[in-house]
Amino acid sequence: MADEHTLPDELRPGEEAGRPDDRIDDERHDEENRLKTSYVRSVVEALDAGDKGRVYDLVEPLHPADVADLFELVDADDRPRLASAITDLLSGEVIAELNDFVRDGMIEALPPETVAGIAEQLETDDAVQLIEDLDAADQAAVLAEMEPADRAAIESALAYPEETAGRLMSRAFVAVPEHMTVGDLIDYLRDTDRGDLPTDFWEVFVVDPAHKPVGTCQLSWILRTPRHIALADVMKRDQTLIPVTADQEEVGNMFQKYALISAAVVDESGRLVGQMTADDVVHIISEEAGEDVLLLSGAGDGDINEPIRDAYTARVRWLVANLATASVASFVISRFESVIAQMVALAVLMPIVAGIGGNAGTQTLAVTVRALATNQLTASNVWRAVRRELSIALLNGATVALVIGLAVGLIFGHPMLGAVIGMAMLTNIVIAGIAGVLVPLTLERLGADPAISSSIFVTMTTDSMGFLVFLGLAVASGLVG
Amino acid sequence: MADEHTLPDELRPGEEAGRPDDRIDDERHDEENRLKTSYVRSVVEALDAGDKGRVYDLVEPLHPADVADLFELVDADDRPRLASAITDLLSGEVIAELNDFVRDGMIEALPPETVAGIAEQLETDDAVQLIEDLDAADQAAVLAEMEPADRAAIESALAYPEETAGRLMSRAFVAVPEHMTVGDLIDYLRDTDRGDLPTDFWEVFVVDPAHKPVGTCQLSWILRTPRHIALADVMKRDQTLIPVTADQEEVGNMFQKYALISAAVVDESGRLVGQMTADDVVHIISEEAGEDVLLLSGAGDGDINEPIRDAYTARVRWLVANLATASVASFVISRFESVIAQMVALAVLMPIVAGIGGNAGTQTLAVTVRALATNQLTASNVWRAVRRELSIALLNGATVALVIGLAVGLIFGHPMLGAVIGMAMLTNIVIAGIAGVLVPLTLERLGADPAISSSIFVTMTTDSMGFLVFLGLAVASGLVG
Repeated sequence: MADEHTLPDELRPGEEAGRPDDRIDDERHDEENRLKTSYVRSVVEALDAGDKGRVYDLVEPLHPADVADLFELVDADDRPRLASAITDLLSGEVIAELNDFVRDGMIEALPPETVAGIAEQLETDDAVQLIEDLDAADQAAVLAEMEPADRAAIESALAYPEETAGRLMSRAFVAVPEHMTVGDLIDYLRDTDRGDLPTDFWEVFVVDPAHKPVGTCQLSWILRTPRHIALADVMKRDQTLIPVTADQEEVGNMFQKYALISAAVVDESGRLVGQMTADDVVHIISEEAGEDVLLLSGAGDGDINEPIRDAYTARVRWLVANLATASVASFVISRFESVIAQMVALAVLMPIVAGIGGNAGTQTLAVTVRALATNQLTASNVWRAVRRELSIALLNGATVALVIGLAVGLIFGHPMLGAVIGMAMLTNIVIAGIAGVLVPLTLERLGADPAISSSIFVTMTTDSMGFLVFLGLAVASGLVG
Repeated sequence: MADEHTLPDELRPGEEAGRPDDRIDDERHDEENRLKTSYVRSVVEALDAGDKGRVYDLVEPLHPADVADLFELVDADDRPRLASAITDLLSGEVIAELNDFVRDGMIEALPPETVAGIAEQLETDDAVQLIEDLDAADQAAVLAEMEPADRAAIESALAYPEETAGRLMSRAFVAVPEHMTVGDLIDYLRDTDRGDLPTDFWEVFVVDPAHKPVGTCQLSWILRTPRHIALADVMKRDQTLIPVTADQEEVGNMFQKYALISAAVVDESGRLVGQMTADDVVHIISEEAGEDVLLLSGAGDGDINEPIRDAYTARVRWLVANLATASVASFVISRFESVIAQMVALAVLMPIVAGIGGNAGTQTLAVTVRALATNQLTASNVWRAVRRELSIALLNGATVALVIGLAVGLIFGHPMLGAVIGMAMLTNIVIAGIAGVLVPLTLERLGADPAISSSIFVTMTTDSMGFLVFLGLAVASGLVG
C-alpha cells in the first residue's frame, strides 16, 4: 500500500507533470464541474460500438475522481465493459473515489487476487473501505492474497468498529522524538534510505519515549525556522488528540470546531497510532450533515446507487411504521363519526389543522436535530431552546389561527366554525413546537439518534392532536352536538 | 491582520507551549467534547456573584473554540458580562469561531474602533465575516478606523458576492517562479526579512510571469527532495483551480471530489489571487449539507441562535404558504361532501391515504435533493433515477396497499372498502414517487434551489391526489353513490 512503501524517488510527484488541467475544460465539464451529458454519451456510444481504443482516448485525460464519476453515471451493465476498456486507468485513486454501492457491485464481480492487487495499491484506509463490505469468506480470500504487512495493517483496522477513527485513520504518519532540532528533523526527512515515511503529510508529530504525543509541528513552521532551533521550541503543545474509538461524527465535529488540517489518533493508553486528515474528513462531514434529511424522512442510506431491493426494504419499513401511527389518528377521528355526520364541513377542514401542525412540528424538529448534531444544543442551553421554540410556536400559531379563522369564518359564513378552527390551529402549532423540540431531546437522552425516529412521533402527535382538538372543540363549543 | 503581517519570530508557535491540553480534560468536557453543564453553570454563578477573577480563571485554560462555545451556551444577557470579565482572552480566533448570530449581536453593541481593533487581529477572511453583516454605515465606520492595507484587503473581498470564493478566500499564500530549485525555495522561505509570507501554509504555488499558476508543490515534497532538484520537476502540474466567482457549494464539492487540503483561487484572467484551505471548507460543507433538512422543512436559517423575530418571519411565511396548498386538498374533499355524509368511515380513513403518500413523497424528495446537491444526479443519469424511484414506489405501494387493504377489509368487515383504500394507496404512493423526483428536477432545471420549495408542491400533490383518488374510487366502485 502506498502509505507504507518506500518514498518514490524525489521526482515522483513531477511524473504527473504535463498532464493537462482537465478540470476547467469545457469540452468535458459543465459549469458546475460535472461531466457533461454529451461527453458521457460519447463514451457510451464508443462502448456500444465496441471501440475500446476510442473509449480509452476519451477517458485517458480525466482526473481519477472524474473516472469514478463516469462509472457512476453510466448504467450498471455498462460498467464492466468500461472497466475492461480502461484497465490501466483504473487506479487505486479511482477505486477509492467510487460510490460505495458502485464499488461493492464491481468488487463482488472480481476474483480475490484482482481485488488484492487493487488493495495493495491503496492506502490502508482506502483498502479497508474496499473490502470491509465483502462477506467474511470473500474478505478472507482477498486478505490471503495480500502481502503480510499490508494484511496486518488491514486486519488491525478491521478490528475497530465501522465509522470509528480506528477504522478510518491512516497508519502512515511522521513521528519524531522531542530532543531533535529543526535541522535534525530536516535531515531525517531527507534521508532517502528511510522507506517508512509517507509522501504526503502536513504535520510532524513529536512523541515521548512511550510514543505519546507531546506536540505537533506544521511543515510551514519547519521550513521557516532556522536549523539550530530545538523542535521543542517550535512545536505547538496543545493539540487535538482523537481517541481511536471516536465515532466519525465526533471526528468531524472536532475538525470543524478546531479548524484542523490533520490530527493525531491515540489509543486507550494515549499512544500515537494514526492520523486523520481533512481531505478524508470532508467526506465524513458531508455524509453526517446530509444524512439528517434522509433519516428524518426514513429514506435509509438514500443513495441513488443503492440497490433497489435495499432501498425498498428501508423505505417500506418506515411507511408501514407510519401506517401504524396514522391509524392512531384515524382512531381519534372514528370517535367523532357522529359529529362529522352532522357537519361534513369538519371533515373538509380537519386535514388542514393536522397538516399545518405537522409542518410546524417538522420545522422545529429540523432545527433541533441540526443543533444536536452540531453540538450547539447541549444540556446547558436546553431550556432556553425549549422556551425559544415555544415563543416562536405561539407567534406562528397566533398568525396562522388568525388567517385560517378569518378565511373559514368568511368562506363558510360561519364565525363560530372560524373561531373553532383558529383555536385548534393555535393549540396544535404550540403542541407541534413542544413535540418538535422535546421528542428529539428525549431520544438523544435515551441514547438513540434523534434523526432516526423523531418524525414518526412528532407527526403522530400533530395528526392525532390536530383531529382531537379540532373535533373536540367543535363539540365543546356547541357547534355540533 | 495576521496573514499579512511580518512572520512572527521563529519561536512564535512555541509561545503556546506549556498550555495544558484542555480538550480531553474531563473536568470541563463531556465524552462528546462539549462543555459540561456543570462547568457552564460554575461560570454563570461566578458571573452572577460578580467575581470576575474567578470567571477569568475558569475560562483561561479553554481553547478559543471552546470560549466561543461558552458564549453561545450562556444566555444572551450574560454575554456582555462574560466579555467584560475576560477581555484579553477574547482573541480574534474566538470571534472567528463564534456563531454568526451571536457574533453579530455582540459586534453591533461595540463601538466602531473596538470592532476595527478586533478585525485587525483577524485574517482577512475572518475579518470580512466579522463586518459583512453590519449595515453600510457601521461598516464604513469600522473600515475608516482600520489600517489602509487591511481596509483595502477587506474592501476587495466585499466586492465579491457573499458565499463566493472571492469573499471567502485567504489572500495570504506563497507563490514562487518556476525557475527556482528546491534549495532556492527553502532559502526564500527562510528569509526572515520577508514580511509578506504567511505563517501557516500547506502548499507552494508555482506561477508564470503573468502570475498564472503552472503547478503546485506540497511542503512534504519540498522537505523530502534534495536542494539541487528543480522545482519544475517536483511540482504537480495538474491542480484544481477555483474560479474567484465560484459559489461556496461548488467549492465544497471540488474539495470533496478531489480530496484537497488547499487550492488556488484564480480570477477571470487566470491569475492567482488567493487560496482556500480545507479547515475553512469543512464549515462550508457542513453548512451546505445540513441546510437541506432546514430548507425542505421551511425552517429558514434554522439556527438556534437566530433572533426569534427572524425565525418567526421565515417559518410563518412557509406555514401560510402551506395553508394555501392545504386549501386545495380541502377543496377536493368538499367536492365529496355528500359521499362522506353517506359513509363517514371515508373521513376516518382518508387522512391515511394522504399522509402515507406524503411520507413516500418526502422520502423520494430527500434522496433526490441530496443527489442533486452532491452532483451525483446529473442530466446523464436522470432517467435512470426516475425509473428507479418508480420501481421503488411500485414495490412500496404494493406492500402498503396489501397491508392497509387487508387491515381495513377485516377491521371494518368490508372487503370492498379494503380494496378501494388499497388501490388508492398504491396509486398515491406511485404519484408521490413521481412527484418526489420530478418536482426537484424541474425546479433545478428552472434555476431554483430544489431544496427550498419542493416539499410544498410534493405535499400538495400527495394530499390532493390522495383524497381525490380515495374518494373518487369510492364513488367509481359503487361503494357509495
